[in-house]
Amino acid sequence: MKDTLIIFDTTLRDGEQSPGASMTRDEKLRVARQLERMRVDVIEAGFAAASNGDFEAVRGIAETVRESTVCSLARANERDIERAGEAIRPAAMGRVHTFIATSPIHMEKKLRMSPDQVVEQAVKAIGWARKYTDDVEFSAEDAGRSEIDFLCRIFEAVIDAGARTINVPDTVGYNVPDQFANTIRTLLERVPNADKVVWSVHCHNDLGLAVSNSLAAVLAGARQVECTINGLGERAGNASLEEVVMAVRTRADVFPVTTGIDTTQIVPASKLVSQITGYPVQPNKAIVGANAFAHESGIHQDGVLKHRETYEIMRAEDVGWRANKLVLGKHSGRNAFRARLQELGVRIASEEHLNAAFARFKELADKKHEIFDEDLQALMSDESLTPEVEHFRLLSSRFHSETGETPQAALTLSVGGTEHQSQATGSGPVDAAFKAIESVARSGAELLLYSVNAITTGTDAQGEVTVRLALGGKVVNGQGSDTDIIVASVKAYLNGLNKLQGKADKLNPQVGP
Amino acid sequence: MKDTLIIFDTTLRDGEQSPGASMTRDEKLRVARQLERMRVDVIEAGFAAASNGDFEAVRGIAETVRESTVCSLARANERDIERAGEAIRPAAMGRVHTFIATSPIHMEKKLRMSPDQVVEQAVKAIGWARKYTDDVEFSAEDAGRSEIDFLCRIFEAVIDAGARTINVPDTVGYNVPDQFANTIRTLLERVPNADKVVWSVHCHNDLGLAVSNSLAAVLAGARQVECTINGLGERAGNASLEEVVMAVRTRADVFPVTTGIDTTQIVPASKLVSQITGYPVQPNKAIVGANAFAHESGIHQDGVLKHRETYEIMRAEDVGWRANKLVLGKHSGRNAFRARLQELGVRIASEEHLNAAFARFKELADKKHEIFDEDLQALMSDESLTPEVEHFRLLSSRFHSETGETPQAALTLSVGGTEHQSQATGSGPVDAAFKAIESVARSGAELLLYSVNAITTGTDAQGEVTVRLALGGKVVNGQGSDTDIIVASVKAYLNGLNKLQGKADKLNPQVGP
Repeated sequence: MKDTLIIFDTTLRDGEQSPGASMTRDEKLRVARQLERMRVDVIEAGFAAASNGDFEAVRGIAETVRESTVCSLARANERDIERAGEAIRPAAMGRVHTFIATSPIHMEKKLRMSPDQVVEQAVKAIGWARKYTDDVEFSAEDAGRSEIDFLCRIFEAVIDAGARTINVPDTVGYNVPDQFANTIRTLLERVPNADKVVWSVHCHNDLGLAVSNSLAAVLAGARQVECTINGLGERAGNASLEEVVMAVRTRADVFPVTTGIDTTQIVPASKLVSQITGYPVQPNKAIVGANAFAHESGIHQDGVLKHRETYEIMRAEDVGWRANKLVLGKHSGRNAFRARLQELGVRIASEEHLNAAFARFKELADKKHEIFDEDLQALMSDESLTPEVEHFRLLSSRFHSETGETPQAALTLSVGGTEHQSQATGSGPVDAAFKAIESVARSGAELLLYSVNAITTGTDAQGEVTVRLALGGKVVNGQGSDTDIIVASVKAYLNGLNKLQGKADKLNPQVGP
Repeated sequence: MKDTLIIFDTTLRDGEQSPGASMTRDEKLRVARQLERMRVDVIEAGFAAASNGDFEAVRGIAETVRESTVCSLARANERDIERAGEAIRPAAMGRVHTFIATSPIHMEKKLRMSPDQVVEQAVKAIGWARKYTDDVEFSAEDAGRSEIDFLCRIFEAVIDAGARTINVPDTVGYNVPDQFANTIRTLLERVPNADKVVWSVHCHNDLGLAVSNSLAAVLAGARQVECTINGLGERAGNASLEEVVMAVRTRADVFPVTTGIDTTQIVPASKLVSQITGYPVQPNKAIVGANAFAHESGIHQDGVLKHRETYEIMRAEDVGWRANKLVLGKHSGRNAFRARLQELGVRIASEEHLNAAFARFKELADKKHEIFDEDLQALMSDESLTPEVEHFRLLSSRFHSETGETPQAALTLSVGGTEHQSQATGSGPVDAAFKAIESVARSGAELLLYSVNAITTGTDAQGEVTVRLALGGKVVNGQGSDTDIIVASVKAYLNGLNKLQGKADKLNPQVGP
């Protein structure tokens, strides 16, 4: 009987710390429900003390998710831990994850604390956390660059204080597999009562080694891996959940563990996270990239189909790839629409929500012959369907461009309920449209990124536009989709402005394991 | 004194085998020059026997590149090797790389040859190759799933026959680091005269382990790594050149080797390959992703700038990241333009080429206030500047879309020198434009992918559109850039049609290590 490898997903915490990847409460809930459906063991839902919005998001997830443990990160201080503990209170299974830095450089430069003080603070933190739950995890931030003797000392102390999971993060992605495995092996040998806790790792990908460092640690005895969908996370990101899970499964002859993950939910999770954060997945990404199983993508390559087994070590359907399914058309009714959404795992908040979505579906079906699952998902993710504040809204638009003339845009916008007309010219119709919006909104936001992806193939595909806007240190991603790319661009820009409007000032931890 | 790790780049061979990533001869030459500038040791320029186009591309690179070895792949048959040998003849340093499959499943199902026959064929292949060059590399395809005794036997035979480099590929990406390192160690111990040759590895990334498998092999004694820019390659791709090089450099305490790579050329190489192939690099990609050094990207994150060294293990400038430089404006002259192109390493083929580019630059400067290096690179990559056949060309366009009306496009196209007018409506202006093109071209091509990326930031950025078209088993990427996204889309579609038009039928090896 193999050991269980606990899959701890931190897409909603470390992943969300990527520039511009911050999610609204509703978006986080959608991701959390997908993680639960995938049977992730632990969902790190956020950093409750970072802001009221984060607190509400963690609490919302704790109220909703029943099958996975819901966890909040907290620095090793009483207020952070109190917020984390309160946020996870409604959870069926709740965890507080507290951390403090243990490397000489971090203790000296960031914490300005002595090693003795750090140990004392860590022990206190476990005590505070245990008031809320028995399931307490402790992380030694920057463990990868910490002294092994000090790690043994602090881990012994927090285990005595009641920590159940000990996490060893490679915060700056500096480790290589053999050496990281040695660190884990040494800790398991030297720390008293090491066998009473679960050992966990959290690896960053700065040198491209996050997955292999995690797997090397598993071979050395770690039984929890912290990871994210698509390897999202600060800088070059975290270990990819999909790669860790599929390596352990595909090489069951090598790894002495199994996971509880429903791997057929991997690709839907990847698409959902990519869509919500606006972070694309490159085609040559392992497991979830569009080319990872290229012979499944409709592109026939000579020779491959003849002898699939000669080149295939995993089956595309096992990780949730499937052909685009034609699901609905112009004449589909409300019940078929609702049923398909339920099959896709899209939660419908209310009848009003369903009605608004169905009206949009009919509108889309007038423009587009075939409606695929991806179209429905895009439709349902459209921000304007959610009950969030919509300060800026597009009422109507007109665009004209012609060789030798300057492109023009004329928009009618609703701003806080009042109708505004606006016209502008620009270097292209999108530029003209954005200038027309700014002449009304006067946000002063800076456009950092503009990208479009077709959601489905074919020329009548919906375009999904992502704009990244920055204003006064805040960075948001706005999204919009439409069969008209210019209209989609306007929707995305307005969505970004609405997010800037609604976004409370938030403490960015910029830390964490 | 450390050993040298030979960096063998196969972007132009294995990378080019990715669906839709095929490059024209001129595009391959541009990539090859950048690889030479980066001081790659060996450039695998292609598979000369695949088509006349491939042969010409390999030969063109062999004629141009002086500082790197230029290599062609060849199956282990006389004709393939003859084509490879002829193609590399003009090279200052030329290599023939021949391969044959050695795993039971491949020998039986693909080759239909006995193990004895495979050894005999491999030995003959080395003999044929040595007629052209002493620098012969041998690969055992699917070595990762081959029997170790058989590998020892075939490697001994090809070393006796005169192979100088022995490559051990993990063709299907099935290996894990410890086990792969063991394979290499065993081969080095057991194969007679193992110390007379360079041992090489070629790892695929299906489980996300290509880089760590390569590095584990280096620790076990391999002294050549085969890799690609951005990890491009079949399915989930190959080991990323940038990750291998920077891991070896950053962890000089662990790896007993150094590379000759000029690391400041890494990011320019990444951008060039991404632009030419239309394959985006995800933001959280190690080293070359936009977020890899997020504190360099203009987004200030609290706390990071205060203590850079607490989170930074590499410096962004060491891998070639730098701020967007404002280089030229509306009033810049022809000499400044030429000088800047030379600094960027863009080769100007002729005065005519320069004049055409300068005219386009002036046109762009009228529409866009600030011209960045990225804009110049996009300008120079515009297919229509190159002397390739331009069967389809845009002469003028008019677009109109308005809420409540069907979007319209009217185009004037040149088709084989004849002017055609065309109008169409569609679900958006891009759809309308593509339909207008198809009503004239009647290609029947299927649109597989449509994506847009802004080349620079700001609302007047140029949009770079990529369309992937499929027709009768051929897949091409068309690119176009313009400040007007609809115009850029039209250019991209026409570029794709021109590529389909010009593309000779090509043997897709779908194999190779």
